[in-house]
Amino acid sequence: MSFDPATLVYDERGLIPCIAQAEGSGEVLMMAWMNIESVNKTLETRRVTYWSRSRQAFWVKGETSGHTQELVDLRVDCDRDCLLAVVRQEGPACHTNRRSCFYTSVTEGTEVEIMAPME
Amino acid sequence: MSFDPATLVYDERGLIPCIAQAEGSGEVLMMAWMNIESVNKTLETRRVTYWSRSRQAFWVKGETSGHTQELVDLRVDCDRDCLLAVVRQEGPACHTNRRSCFYTSVTEGTEVEIMAPME
Repeated sequence: MSFDPATLVYDERGLIPCIAQAEGSGEVLMMAWMNIESVNKTLETRRVTYWSRSRQAFWVKGETSGHTQELVDLRVDCDRDCLLAVVRQEGPACHTNRRSCFYTSVTEGTEVEIMAPME
Repeated sequence: MSFDPATLVYDERGLIPCIAQAEGSGEVLMMAWMNIESVNKTLETRRVTYWSRSRQAFWVKGETSGHTQELVDLRVDCDRDCLLAVVRQEGPACHTNRRSCFYTSVTEGTEVEIMAPME
């Protein structure tokens, strides 16, 4: 069946969450949002392109930092309201320079940092 | 630092997205929503407990199906507006009986099913 981004389920802002996962390691790197145009751009360019809610603009991941995400595979969930992008991540995915944004673990009621910033 | 679920960033509905990832394989199983009480319940019971937007009720994953998610680790992202639950998944995570909800790949403009339902 041919894929039509219009068949995805967007929220009232016209956005759908997209989880980025590293190819190979399977590490969950980050979650950000896409609108229909960023889904199209991501598929066309193979550069993962989110929609920045704060800037209200396209966010070509790594465009300024160089920490790009090359799309390996885009997956749709059963409810069509969430995307999973398997990516080739260049350097850190997080703006804190950590590989993943999920570097804080809740362990026995305490927040523990489980990942250091990359060099 | 002690973890306080009230310091997480919830949307206008009082919800935060939570990604479930399988321990070991790293497979991304599903994404669903939590409110502050379901975050508390998940940490207290170690049974992943979402908030069902359609039913407007707690959704103890696997309560009826037996396909439970035992919490291994709960992680918070850098913006504190997304959670990652590393889980021990019993059987399929998806209501279609597939291991993961992300069983559809967009490949060369076509939707391809990459995962069969479990026995």
